[in-house]
Parts: sequence; structure tokens; C-alpha cells
Amino acid sequence: MERRAVDQLTRVAAVSNHLRAMIHDGTLAAGDPLPSTRTLAARLGVARGTVVAAYEQLDGEGYIRTRHGAVARVVGSIGPRPSDPTPAPAPRGSSTRPTWSPAVALVAPPGSIDLRPGTPSVRAIPVRDWRAAWRAGAEEPLRNALSDAMGTRTLREQIAAQLGLTRGFAPAPDRVVVHAGTSDALSVLAEALRIRHGRPGRIAVEDPGYRSGRRAMLSAGAELVGVPVADDGMDLAVLEALAPIPDAVMVTPTHQYPLGSVMPVAARQRLLVWAAAHDVVVVEDDYDSEFRHRGDPVPALAALDAHGVVLHLGGFSKILDPRIRCAYMVLPEARDLAEAIRASRLARGPVVSEVAQSALAHLIRSGALRRHLGRVRRDYAHRRDLLATRLAEIDRPDLEARALSGGLHAVLTWPGRPEAAAVRTALAADGVVVEELARYAVTPETAANGIVLGYAAVTHVELDRALDAIVDELAAR
Amino acid sequence: MERRAVDQLTRVAAVSNHLRAMIHDGTLAAGDPLPSTRTLAARLGVARGTVVAAYEQLDGEGYIRTRHGAVARVVGSIGPRPSDPTPAPAPRGSSTRPTWSPAVALVAPPGSIDLRPGTPSVRAIPVRDWRAAWRAGAEEPLRNALSDAMGTRTLREQIAAQLGLTRGFAPAPDRVVVHAGTSDALSVLAEALRIRHGRPGRIAVEDPGYRSGRRAMLSAGAELVGVPVADDGMDLAVLEALAPIPDAVMVTPTHQYPLGSVMPVAARQRLLVWAAAHDVVVVEDDYDSEFRHRGDPVPALAALDAHGVVLHLGGFSKILDPRIRCAYMVLPEARDLAEAIRASRLARGPVVSEVAQSALAHLIRSGALRRHLGRVRRDYAHRRDLLATRLAEIDRPDLEARALSGGLHAVLTWPGRPEAAAVRTALAADGVVVEELARYAVTPETAANGIVLGYAAVTHVELDRALDAIVDELAAR
Repeated sequence: MERRAVDQLTRVAAVSNHLRAMIHDGTLAAGDPLPSTRTLAARLGVARGTVVAAYEQLDGEGYIRTRHGAVARVVGSIGPRPSDPTPAPAPRGSSTRPTWSPAVALVAPPGSIDLRPGTPSVRAIPVRDWRAAWRAGAEEPLRNALSDAMGTRTLREQIAAQLGLTRGFAPAPDRVVVHAGTSDALSVLAEALRIRHGRPGRIAVEDPGYRSGRRAMLSAGAELVGVPVADDGMDLAVLEALAPIPDAVMVTPTHQYPLGSVMPVAARQRLLVWAAAHDVVVVEDDYDSEFRHRGDPVPALAALDAHGVVLHLGGFSKILDPRIRCAYMVLPEARDLAEAIRASRLARGPVVSEVAQSALAHLIRSGALRRHLGRVRRDYAHRRDLLATRLAEIDRPDLEARALSGGLHAVLTWPGRPEAAAVRTALAADGVVVEELARYAVTPETAANGIVLGYAAVTHVELDRALDAIVDELAAR
Repeated sequence: MERRAVDQLTRVAAVSNHLRAMIHDGTLAAGDPLPSTRTLAARLGVARGTVVAAYEQLDGEGYIRTRHGAVARVVGSIGPRPSDPTPAPAPRGSSTRPTWSPAVALVAPPGSIDLRPGTPSVRAIPVRDWRAAWRAGAEEPLRNALSDAMGTRTLREQIAAQLGLTRGFAPAPDRVVVHAGTSDALSVLAEALRIRHGRPGRIAVEDPGYRSGRRAMLSAGAELVGVPVADDGMDLAVLEALAPIPDAVMVTPTHQYPLGSVMPVAARQRLLVWAAAHDVVVVEDDYDSEFRHRGDPVPALAALDAHGVVLHLGGFSKILDPRIRCAYMVLPEARDLAEAIRASRLARGPVVSEVAQSALAHLIRSGALRRHLGRVRRDYAHRRDLLATRLAEIDRPDLEARALSGGLHAVLTWPGRPEAAAVRTALAADGVVVEELARYAVTPETAANGIVLGYAAVTHVELDRALDAIVDELAAR
């Protein structure tokens, strides 16, 4: 990690911690104005940019509200955003032209409420910010030069800086490689492992885990082995006993997908030491770390990586819009896999339009992305609370609600009867579409009985109506 | 092919042929006004849209000039566009930050004139049209739904319609699959062949041929076999004698890359019949068919495909801007490879941002792309003429200039001395960067002695200066 970036991070964190503590202990109350960034910087003896970054951080977290040109203030009540009154969009696949093949098997019946996870709320993106970003992208001067397949320099620098502010590590921009989504990135990874080893790459994955990612890696020729997930994330004893030793292990240590467990620091250290000893690359899928509703923020595994074994994977689908088609890797520079990945990316060519890359860089640089994150984080936290409150109505001591500490989905598990498949079918008949937990399993026969609920993409009204049906259904049995 | 689309095509062609003949025989002279589309439609008894399409076609071909709201006129002189007076952009790689890895090995020394092929002129895209398209894309309402990995319906319909107007076949839109560039498309093809056959796909390719495409397919695990190219395109006798029979054969029948030969109709029929008999997929890389400077337009191989064996591959890099990152396949519906390709595309996820897809659809629908093509086609034809005139100054009967009937590059070959490598080195010392023909060869030791010159991306002034050096260099030896 670069020394200067670390110092800057430390100072920003010190200022934001200081202000957060003052808000928590009531020294600063709702509506109170904050000093100007210039005044506070002078008072604390830090650069003004440090205070600006700390204010942005607190705005993103919902503690304060900053407005360009106006005084920053402590937020009054962190209430819910009003529900969007526009009707839900027509579900996919309701086309009247049956010859059109939808290709994506994600079709909910028309009129139903779709709680399958994977889609964030896109209603909260301010149209003004969105359009301004694309305008900035389209206004970049055209040059007679091919795109860099690794991504534009500007976007890679913005991503590196953003990671420094939010994930606790600040990579050099040339370690960042841009892809057209997480599946595209994992496909490149699997191809690079195959070429590096001269045989299909062996990748250990969490069971249950991220289905779409598994599909991309399998299609690109990888061999996957599922490792069970416990309350502390991937079961490391099982991982360490694998023979042959895998080439890579993919984990979601900050918010296991879909079960929501967090890998403790001791387990992270153990994973990194084992990986370094056996030349295994640790792929950290940091898919929704921006949305943590309960507990302290968890730094990225990459921030602990003293051995250079972590390949950090992030994207904009969950935090902005899945249709932007952009994800990124931070390569473990010390490993020769980094060169194999660059070669595969180069062979497939650049995939993200430079206009899109400029638009994204603009959203990051202008602060629009951070403001957006602050807004949706508050909204998701409210949805999560609604969910928790309603699920508490179900009088079943054996029912467990999981993954509620963060993210965009929850998992309900219960032992024995009823079968999750029967619950799913009954709910679908009520017009509520959920996913079975077994669908995330590498070995479905070992999967726990349960359902997965995505709560980000529907309206508040739809979510409330869907919860009526879920409470009824599970209480009735 | 859809009957209605064919009828519409036939009528548009009849009207444009009629007008083209009147211009050629002098009935319509330079500067003459054309009737309004409404008047001519009434006179010919066709729909007004048919006349609009015919006018657009003739505008694109440079015969007439249409202006919104003004009367259309026959073009006076199809002279060159004035050279762009802006200085050439700084070449890549002249960065002052040596730690930044350029990753793309496309670095010309600062100040040199880069004639390596592959980059179109982007200076000719009207900034107004470009920005309007991206604005339209960014203004599409956001929906809470994932993207279709095959591409948006709107763009697929526009591409299908465009092929009907320009390439002589009008596929159903659900046969169109959108990718993030030709390399991305060929990578998916190679993956699908591997999965379909359970072993590396065997793909016959032209030698010399398209290097980047070969790299993408090799990286995705394909096995390539080079087939020599003769004056009629790929040597079919060699292809037919291959053992084992390949799974696919990739050709550039309309303008062989890089040598420029055109595959005659008889050879096309022979290729298609052989492919159908042996269950071989014919990949038609239609990379620069929009730019034909001499001779009649050549319809696509896909337009002759009675057996459903052709996978047609097109893109926007050569006709618009390589940084838009969008190409497309038209799948051979009858073959089960179509399903394997859809599965691989689905596994890797959608790769082109919906905003970019909307922007492209807008450029096609609004006619901006067709107007742009008309302008750059005239410019490229002028550059080609300049090139041919200057090369005629070289007093070497053994020098052959090839690939001049269309496209964005030319090939110069000569037997024996001097070695192309020496010419390339000497030109580089003069500040002119060209490519050796041997770099396109699958088996470099069999390659003809020659150089490849891309003439689209430099300014007219730079091109003239580069030709001074080339004429000097080749005449001197």
C-alpha cells in the first residue's frame, strides 16, 4: 500500500470518527450546522481536502447533509425515502411477440412482486446526476487511438482512490483492470488460470454461493469445488484439507452470499497465510460491502493482504445500476497470475465503452456516486428494519432470519417442514416470487431449507404486500 | 428472410437504381434538385418511406446530398473533405509516468505518423450527432430489471433492419446477439465450440488474416489452422482437404483481410455447399464491407446462405469508432451451435451498457450513422486515390499494390529484396510507422514480402508526408 495514501486515509478517518462521536454523544444535534471545511481544517491542523473527504464520508453514511455552497448540517431524522409512486415496470417476458427469445431466465409472471435478489433499486439515482455523467462521457474529445483493454487511466485512478476511501486499501492504478461486469471478470479469471496452468483452473467456491459467478467460470473451462459455509464464512478446515490444493479460492468475506456471515479477522489471517504458503490466489468478491446496516464497517480482505495473494473484485451493479456493465479487479501484483489475466483481457479486447468509463469516473469524481450511496443506504436500512419487524410476527421459534446485517437481501431458514419448494410455489400463487436457498448450493442435496428475499428493487408498498404473504404462508404451516 | 423486409428492400433498391442511372447518364446533373420525397413517392406509386430510404442510400453513397428541411440535390464534385487542421493527438505511450503499464502494445514513438491499420478516422463523426445519441441513451427511463445478455431488443431490431438495407439479408432480430467488440464475439464463439464438442474447437482461418481475432480465439481455447489465401480469397481446395474437418471456418469474403481479395460467387457457393455437407459453421467476418471504393457492392455471404451455415459477424469499430465497444453476430438458427453461443454469452453476462446500446440504436435510427458513412466513404475513397497516385510514382514493375478496392488500408508486396523488415525499420527512422505483412501470417515463414498501410486515421497532410517517405524508401532500393 502506498504510504501517502495510507496517511491521508488515517487522517480522514480520524476527522470522521471525531465528528461521528460528537453526533452520537449529542454534542452535535439534529440540524446543527457544521463549521466550514476551511475553518475546521485550520482548527484541526489538517489539509482542507481531508475535511472535505470526511464530510463526504459522513454524508454518504447519512450522518450529515452537505450541499454545494451551503453550510453542512447534521441530519434530523434518518427516515425512509418516500416510496416512488410510479407503477412498477412491466416484468420482462410479457412481450406479445412469442418469437422473441428472452434468453435470460429471469421472467416473473406479469403483475407479480419479484423478490429474487440481484437487482438494486435504480429509482434512487438522481436523473440529473445520471445524465450529467453521460454527457461528460460523450463530450470527451475523440482521439484516433484504440482503447486500453485494461481500462481508461482516469477510471482506474478513480477506482483506486475510491477503494482508499471506502475499503481500507489504496492500490496503484495500474493494478486495476476494468471488465464489463463481475461475470465477465470471472470468465477472464478462469481463462487466465487455464492458460497459466495448462489445464482447467481449480477454483474453490463457497457452498452455498454466487451462482452467476460459478456459471461464468464453468463456461470458461474452470473446475469448481464447493466448500461449505459456516457462521464465520467459508469452512477453512475443509478448504485446507482439499486435495489437490486449488489454484484459487473465491470468498465473500464481508457479507457471505447469500447467508450473510462475516469472516472474522482471525479467520482472514489464517486464510491469507494458508494461501501464501500454497501459492493460492484468494479472490475477494466484495459485492455489496457498501451496504452495511448493523455493526461496524468491515475493511476488505485486500487491506490485510501482506503476502500479495488477494485479487479484489468489485463492481457497480449493486451500488449503481446493473445495466452500466462495469466491474473491476485489483490484481495481486506479486503473482504471475496478474500477467495471465492481463493477457486474457488483452486477447478479448477492451469491453467497456470509453464513454461509459468516463461517465462512471465522472459519477465518482463529482461525488454523485457517494451521495447516491448515502441515500440508498438509508433506504435499504429502512427496508431491512421493515423486514425484520414483519418477520418477528411469525410465531415459529425454529425460523431463522439471516444476512440482515447488510446488503440487499435476506435469507429465511427453518428445519424440516414445510419444504422450501412448497413455500415458493404457494407464494408464487399469491403473486410473490422468491428464490429457494437450494438454488445457490453447489450440492443442492446438502442445502438448508430456506428462501432468499431481495428487498431492494421493489417499491416499499410492494415489499409490504409481499411480506403479508410471506408472514401468512410461514405462520400457517 | 422475412418476406415483407425483402419486398421493402427490393422497392428501395429499384428507386435508388433508377436515380443512380439518371445521375450516371447525365439526366440529372451536378446541383440539380430532386423532387420532394412525397412528390416522387406519388409519381412512382410507392410509400414515401421507400423514397426516403432510397435518398438516404444515395446520400450515403455520395450521389446526392440531403439536408433536413431542404431540397435534396445531386452532388457537384465528390472532392475530398478539407484536411483537418488540428494537430495529430499525442501518440499513446508518451506518458511521463513510466510506472503506468500501457498493456496494449500499440505504441508509436512520439511525433511519428502511425499507419498501422485497424483505426478508422474518428474526426469525421459530427459531434452533434454523437452527443445527441448518448443523450438519448442516458434519457432512457431506468427500469428495475436486468439487461438481456443477448442485447436490447431495440438495438437488435435496428441491426437487423440495417443489414437488410446494406448487406442483402434481413435476419429475425432474435438471431442477432450483441457483444462488446469482435474479439469478445470470437472469444464467445471459441468457448461455445469447446463446450459443444467437449474439446478445443478447430477453426480454420485465413493465412494471412486477422491477428487480433486469432488471439481472442486461441486465448479462449480454440485450435486454429491456417489456410492460404489466393486471389479468390481462401484456397478452398486446401480447406476441403483438411483432416480432421474443422468445426468452423472463418473468412472475410467481401474484402479479404489484409490482402483485399474478393471471393467470387462460385467460390462462395462451393464453400457453403461443402460446409453444409460437413456440418461446418462458416464465420463471415464482414469487417469493412461498408467501404467499397471500386466495383459493385458485394452482398454478404449470409445473403446466399440457403443451408443455414453462416454465422455473420459485424461491428461498429470500423464504421463508427472502436471505442464504442459493440459488435454483433447473426446466428445460424438451424445449428445447435446457436444455442451453445447463447449459453456462453449468458454465462459471461451482458457486456454492453444499455446506454451504449440505446445510443447506437439512436445513431442507426436517426440516419446519423448512414450520413456519417457517406462522408467517411468519400474521404476514404479520396485517400485511396491519393495513395494509388503516389505509389504509381515508384518505378518498380515488381511492386504490387493490393486491397485498394475498399476498406481502410492497402498492402504493398514485392518479391525478394529489400526485406520488408528493413523497409519497416528505415521508415520508422523517418518517423513513419507501418506494419509488416508477415505479422498477419499464421505461418510467418511462408508470408509474402510486404507492408500494410492504414490510411484512415491520420490526417491528409500526414498521409501525404508518409507517402513521400514510402515512395523514397521503396524507389531507393
